Amino acid sequence: MERHTIFDWSRKARTGIPEAVFAEGKSLSHLHDVIRDHIDRNASLLITRLTPTQIDGLRDLPLSVDDLGRTATLEAPEPDHDAPVVAIVTAGTSDLSVAREAEVAANFMGLRTELIADVGVAGLWRLEAHLPALTAHRLIIAVAGMEGALFSVLAGLVTAPIIAVPTSVGYGVAKDGSVALGSALGGCAPGVVCVNIDNGFGAAAAAAKILNIAQAL
Amino acid sequence: MERHTIFDWSRKARTGIPEAVFAEGKSLSHLHDVIRDHIDRNASLLITRLTPTQIDGLRDLPLSVDDLGRTATLEAPEPDHDAPVVAIVTAGTSDLSVAREAEVAANFMGLRTELIADVGVAGLWRLEAHLPALTAHRLIIAVAGMEGALFSVLAGLVTAPIIAVPTSVGYGVAKDGSVALGSALGGCAPGVVCVNIDNGFGAAAAAAKILNIAQAL
Amino acid sequence: MERHTIFDWSRKARTGIPEAVFAEGKSLSHLHDVIRDHIDRNASLLITRLTPTQIDGLRDLPLSVDDLGRTATLEAPEPDHDAPVVAIVTAGTSDLSVAREAEVAANFMGLRTELIADVGVAGLWRLEAHLPALTAHRLIIAVAGMEGALFSVLAGLVTAPIIAVPTSVGYGVAKDGSVALGSALGGCAPGVVCVNIDNGFGAAAAAAKILNIAQAL
Amino acid sequence: MERHTIFDWSRKARTGIPEAVFAEGKSLSHLHDVIRDHIDRNASLLITRLTPTQIDGLRDLPLSVDDLGRTATLEAPEPDHDAPVVAIVTAGTSDLSVAREAEVAANFMGLRTELIADVGVAGLWRLEAHLPALTAHRLIIAVAGMEGALFSVLAGLVTAPIIAVPTSVGYGVAKDGSVALGSALGGCAPGVVCVNIDNGFGAAAAAAKILNIAQAL
Amino acid sequence: MERHTIFDWSRKARTGIPEAVFAEGKSLSHLHDVIRDHIDRNASLLITRLTPTQIDGLRDLPLSVDDLGRTATLEAPEPDHDAPVVAIVTAGTSDLSVAREAEVAANFMGLRTELIADVGVAGLWRLEAHLPALTAHRLIIAVAGMEGALFSVLAGLVTAPIIAVPTSVGYGVAKDGSVALGSALGGCAPGVVCVNIDNGFGAAAAAAKILNIAQAL
Amino acid sequence: MERHTIFDWSRKARTGIPEAVFAEGKSLSHLHDVIRDHIDRNASLLITRLTPTQIDGLRDLPLSVDDLGRTATLEAPEPDHDAPVVAIVTAGTSDLSVAREAEVAANFMGLRTELIADVGVAGLWRLEAHLPALTAHRLIIAVAGMEGALFSVLAGLVTAPIIAVPTSVGYGVAKDGSVALGSALGGCAPGVVCVNIDNGFGAAAAAAKILNIAQAL
Amino acid sequence: MERHTIFDWSRKARTGIPEAVFAEGKSLSHLHDVIRDHIDRNASLLITRLTPTQIDGLRDLPLSVDDLGRTATLEAPEPDHDAPVVAIVTAGTSDLSVAREAEVAANFMGLRTELIADVGVAGLWRLEAHLPALTAHRLIIAVAGMEGALFSVLAGLVTAPIIAVPTSVGYGVAKDGSVALGSALGGCAPGVVCVNIDNGFGAAAAAAKILNIAQAL
Amino acid sequence: MERHTIFDWSRKARTGIPEAVFAEGKSLSHLHDVIRDHIDRNASLLITRLTPTQIDGLRDLPLSVDDLGRTATLEAPEPDHDAPVVAIVTAGTSDLSVAREAEVAANFMGLRTELIADVGVAGLWRLEAHLPALTAHRLIIAVAGMEGALFSVLAGLVTAPIIAVPTSVGYGVAKDGSVALGSALGGCAPGVVCVNIDNGFGAAAAAAKILNIAQAL
Repeated sequence: MERHTIFDWSRKARTGIPEAVFAEGKSLSHLHDVIRDHIDRNASLLITRLTPTQIDGLRDLPLSVDDLGRTATLEAPEPDHDAPVVAIVTAGTSDLSVAREAEVAANFMGLRTELIADVGVAGLWRLEAHLPALTAHRLIIAVAGMEGALFSVLAGLVTAPIIAVPTSVGYGVAKDGSVALGSALGGCAPGVVCVNIDNGFGAAAAAAKILNIAQAL
Repeated sequence: MERHTIFDWSRKARTGIPEAVFAEGKSLSHLHDVIRDHIDRNASLLITRLTPTQIDGLRDLPLSVDDLGRTATLEAPEPDHDAPVVAIVTAGTSDLSVAREAEVAANFMGLRTELIADVGVAGLWRLEAHLPALTAHRLIIAVAGMEGALFSVLAGLVTAPIIAVPTSVGYGVAKDGSVALGSALGGCAPGVVCVNIDNGFGAAAAAAKILNIAQAL
Repeated sequence: MERHTIFDWSRKARTGIPEAVFAEGKSLSHLHDVIRDHIDRNASLLITRLTPTQIDGLRDLPLSVDDLGRTATLEAPEPDHDAPVVAIVTAGTSDLSVAREAEVAANFMGLRTELIADVGVAGLWRLEAHLPALTAHRLIIAVAGMEGALFSVLAGLVTAPIIAVPTSVGYGVAKDGSVALGSALGGCAPGVVCVNIDNGFGAAAAAAKILNIAQAL
Repeated sequence: MERHTIFDWSRKARTGIPEAVFAEGKSLSHLHDVIRDHIDRNASLLITRLTPTQIDGLRDLPLSVDDLGRTATLEAPEPDHDAPVVAIVTAGTSDLSVAREAEVAANFMGLRTELIADVGVAGLWRLEAHLPALTAHRLIIAVAGMEGALFSVLAGLVTAPIIAVPTSVGYGVAKDGSVALGSALGGCAPGVVCVNIDNGFGAAAAAAKILNIAQAL
Repeated sequence: MERHTIFDWSRKARTGIPEAVFAEGKSLSHLHDVIRDHIDRNASLLITRLTPTQIDGLRDLPLSVDDLGRTATLEAPEPDHDAPVVAIVTAGTSDLSVAREAEVAANFMGLRTELIADVGVAGLWRLEAHLPALTAHRLIIAVAGMEGALFSVLAGLVTAPIIAVPTSVGYGVAKDGSVALGSALGGCAPGVVCVNIDNGFGAAAAAAKILNIAQAL
Repeated sequence: MERHTIFDWSRKARTGIPEAVFAEGKSLSHLHDVIRDHIDRNASLLITRLTPTQIDGLRDLPLSVDDLGRTATLEAPEPDHDAPVVAIVTAGTSDLSVAREAEVAANFMGLRTELIADVGVAGLWRLEAHLPALTAHRLIIAVAGMEGALFSVLAGLVTAPIIAVPTSVGYGVAKDGSVALGSALGGCAPGVVCVNIDNGFGAAAAAAKILNIAQAL
Repeated sequence: MERHTIFDWSRKARTGIPEAVFAEGKSLSHLHDVIRDHIDRNASLLITRLTPTQIDGLRDLPLSVDDLGRTATLEAPEPDHDAPVVAIVTAGTSDLSVAREAEVAANFMGLRTELIADVGVAGLWRLEAHLPALTAHRLIIAVAGMEGALFSVLAGLVTAPIIAVPTSVGYGVAKDGSVALGSALGGCAPGVVCVNIDNGFGAAAAAAKILNIAQAL
Repeated sequence: MERHTIFDWSRKARTGIPEAVFAEGKSLSHLHDVIRDHIDRNASLLITRLTPTQIDGLRDLPLSVDDLGRTATLEAPEPDHDAPVVAIVTAGTSDLSVAREAEVAANFMGLRTELIADVGVAGLWRLEAHLPALTAHRLIIAVAGMEGALFSVLAGLVTAPIIAVPTSVGYGVAKDGSVALGSALGGCAPGVVCVNIDNGFGAAAAAAKILNIAQAL
């Protein structure tokens, strides 16, 4: 008596963002059904938060899988060569998984991306080396766990708005991302907005909506 | 031996946002000094989170005070008649104070604003009555306390990105705004980003940065 | 020296609700003993929160198992064809497990059920499509995780009382169901009452008691 | 530039519950405006969570004020002599304020009420003395702070459904009502549903909706 | 370079309680060394919080293992036939593991015990059936998870002091025992004292100290 | 329509502890009524948690008031000269208020007390100076705020059971007594039991019940 | 029956730090007694966390009061001109009160201090302007509220160890200093240690102990 | 498309501490790459928080592994025989893992160490036995879980500054180290500073910075 998702085929028209499948907690058979349905319709699809076990179980399907970002895409179109660009900045190596989810999702929604990794504030010179590049960007997704100091520091250095993605990287008081989230929300540097912990997809969706504004003018 | 803020006169050039004074916890004499300094320089100034007592203590100064929004401005220029517009939507009457802070701050930064009050989801027909107007906006600041259901509902109805401002309106489990904050971050409707509880100024600053992108293209 | 539950054979007479077995944390041999005892007495029985391993270990017994809802029943009578009906509404696919627990339990207690899945507020049109059906119901169990906006929205649209069941579906700030619980309790739409996170059984028991009132008049 | 609530005159028709005004945090002038508006229309009105200062400031208006319950009503009709009855039970003397809010609100919505005070479980004989009366009721609102043991105990003794209202009565770990709320939600006695801490109005609204079901059959 | 516990051989003389080994997180080799050391000295020993894996790994040693209570003892003397008695009461079947830890530990310290299981308040008649026996006891250890209502109810019925042991039995808001702990501490029935969640050993140690007072008079 | 407490005149017979009045949040007129009722009956009475304002308002009544402990008693009998003794130990000067509540309550229940103040572990020599006296006691109430290290240290030094009373003395992470409570429950020194934060009365009640055991043998 | 602190006259000899009086929650008469006692003995004294009301009440005594830092000293010796120096750095104007407490306390313990205010990371150029001075210091006390990003940034720039003092400056998620505390503890920049929220005195005491090491070599 | 850490070869010159690799959550192939890179350069390296599985996977590399401390080092130089010494004190056997991480890291940074284990305050005589040795030390790292009373007790006994490392050893309220952390921060014994829960490496890094001050004089 299992029921399946009634897929929201008109979502993109209504909200500007194609519906994606959040894989966590879903059964393999459910995922197979959704994917095959899209294959049959020649529709593109984005799946996020796949576990390694789920990725193994979908190996027989024609998906483009990103192990680091735990994503899979079907028939994902390349972003136009003149599409708007969002910069994705990470504080540490361990934040790369969430950053990749944001990158794959942003590409899927038609944005080009530039990923700048490992510029955490504990070594401020690394951030400064990338400042000229960062200053040129019109929108930045910043991905950081632990104490999340990157968000405030970056906001004091660039004029672009920053979408903060706190990650669950950390331990002790910083476990589960709550300190990084607090830093994203509780700082005084203006221009920082925030999405849920580890929500790379949400950051990409917000970026797509923000940059589409710019395009539409 | 009291020390005063070294005012950051070049902030706007560097980050695109003029520095504002957060009045909470500051002494009247400190506020007087900062304001007179700006009067002497013919500089504009925005002050937020003024208590009624502080507002009374500043009555002798040529400030433009908004009691509801607890803000004061000095030499605030009118937004250009063709400046970009941000919609500000509130769930309930009690959220108006934070919404006014956002409105005054947005105007101060050069944006025009349209305030749409009292469209909480408990009376969904009120929201629907404003939907045509909302759909036309390119950016929406949504202000809601209690359970914050407005954020998700709105994000499912419009294509514009939404800056959620949770407010500390509520009691019991919803006291201090934590449930509204959770709803802003924890929903699955894409396109919602969030600022700190009651941070109307921060939402305006993010809006100014986002819409300036659009302008600059 | 293991001890067993002294089963409460007269519970239904006293409180109107048959005792059920909460399987989580119980050993297989304990469950076997309870079930066989009921088989010997030709008694009906409801078991909830079975793990997949426990379900496997009970395959040899004449139980009616619902894998999705993680329930098993023994000699469960069909609800009368004119029994009162409770609607069970879910926000997302991932909430279906808890909704099924509620449905199986409600049926076991003699209620008929109508399950309406996937009407989360991020796609408000899905909810609106079901509104005529929902408006006709006299009691609604609403099952939602993440930000739990469904509870307030629904309460603003229908006159029936709503039993909210927050689910542990979600991540980051919404992990473990705390935000959905906050939304169920902290909203201002009157007519919403709440049970524990993931407590589909409890919602069904309350529904049975409420609708039995109606029957008894 | 103060804005006022657009009163929801059709709310009762739509949801079965008349809109009430939550006074906490509202200015006296705002309350005056809303009340005079209702006087002009000969409309009835319920105001909850009034502070002593607000009550003093409204003395000149023809309101029926309940100091203990912090409520005021305007043109509240008496419940019909054969209207359904809800029992309201409190654990301690300090819970009476919230119980009175529930009672006034229930009366305002057309229910008769029976208030049974001070039957906390620390003196179980007090509860038992009222058991015959309680058993006869079809719906019970239970109001308790501190550890909230009343909810579970009552649910094990009666067949009626119970609407639990945790109160913020308590100190130390029980401060702000969180333990009582936990007990309302976390117990295993079936038939208990819960509203927000101190939300007597919400309990009354749910009771009105539940008992109207029964009436409508 | 592993270091081992310097066993506190004189602890009992100093504090009245023999030192016990808390097995959680300790390696099998470490446990073996400690146990053999006691065997060599003909010393008695109590080990608590053994995992099933640890229990398997110690099968070759002459220990008296209690699987339900997750304890093992070495050379545990029988309590004297006229030793003081502590009653151990549990709310539900799932609380039995912690109750057994308390029982084994109390016996090890020289107390006799009487275990009364499954008298949770959801079925108050079960508690009342045992009341004559309970009233006769001079000290009661009460073990309960979920909402922990047993502590307050019991304290209102008997004159003996009660040592409350909240257990981590429960889910949703009651997960990890925090609600039961809150109920143990936040109730108003005098005579309840509390130990840490799941700390059966600690309850037994306190009981031994309290009853030794009585003995020593 | 205010209702008053139905006083529990037979409580002492039933539970061994006379009922006391917790004054916090109660109106002066309510307190006056309860006190006069006891004066009329020549009954003794204990009132705890009086605010300075309440104490002022009761000056006309023949009460024995303790300002530091915020208690008042009526017709409190002196403990017998050979009554059992409980030691009351405080970590710091700021814990004296709670300690006095415990002392007054213990005296009221018939125990003699010895108060040993200011023996916090930051100056361990102060505790050691009192060790001979403490070792002679059969039961100790330990009162400590901040980090609550006194509980564990004391339990390692004496054989008597210890009733820990965490206090709300402290700031930052230790605000409201949660760290002291955690230390009382989370330590490994056996023989420590705990009551709610600031609950001096509860500690006295438990002491009276425990020492009455001893007396009764 | 009020009791007074037994002052710990030999504390400095034992622990290297003179005992100070924490004024919060202490009565004026108690403070007067302690101060006069020190005047009579020609002893020096430090009092911290004075409220404005307490400061007013002590005006008649020969104290050296710092209103901003809420401290008072008696007979405080000047630090030697070649005493070790600790730098005290604050993120914002609102952190100055806690920084002054640290400065007064450090001076009282014999250290010289250099206060560098308003170098928060939102304007990183302000921090960089002071970097040469900061790099020359051997120990830094960093004082910051809100998101506390200063701690990590500073630790990545200097070789000196940093004592972080989170302050309760902030609102929403950053209220009460919990986010700043999390950032002080949860960052990955090595060399940061932390004291309690708002504990300027504790930071000074640790600095005195650390620099005394250096002196003693 | 996996990216690797850009190793910070100049970190030691800049901040005085060599960069270490935090292994938790990193893939084996990533760790292999980093290690081989260091082997090729004849560079020394410290790796912390290795899981047993990771340790197994690195067996083929010429690392010096400490299973208890979960660390590995490459080409770690021996501390000079006259290098400064830091004492490392643990409360219990279960805290030894974190203490070993601190010891290995301190040695790696050039400090000599003296490890004194199992001196928890529940057996104060054990601590006192080591007091002469402890008093001679100029800096102490104290490692304790559960209620963390060791920090305050030690600070009252010695003049050296103390770096507190709370550990996640404990259960119930003390689970995950939060009570030990609260005790480290919330005590009143001056001279205690704190690092994150389980952060032995951070304590060592702070110790190295502090003692290098002393050396540099």
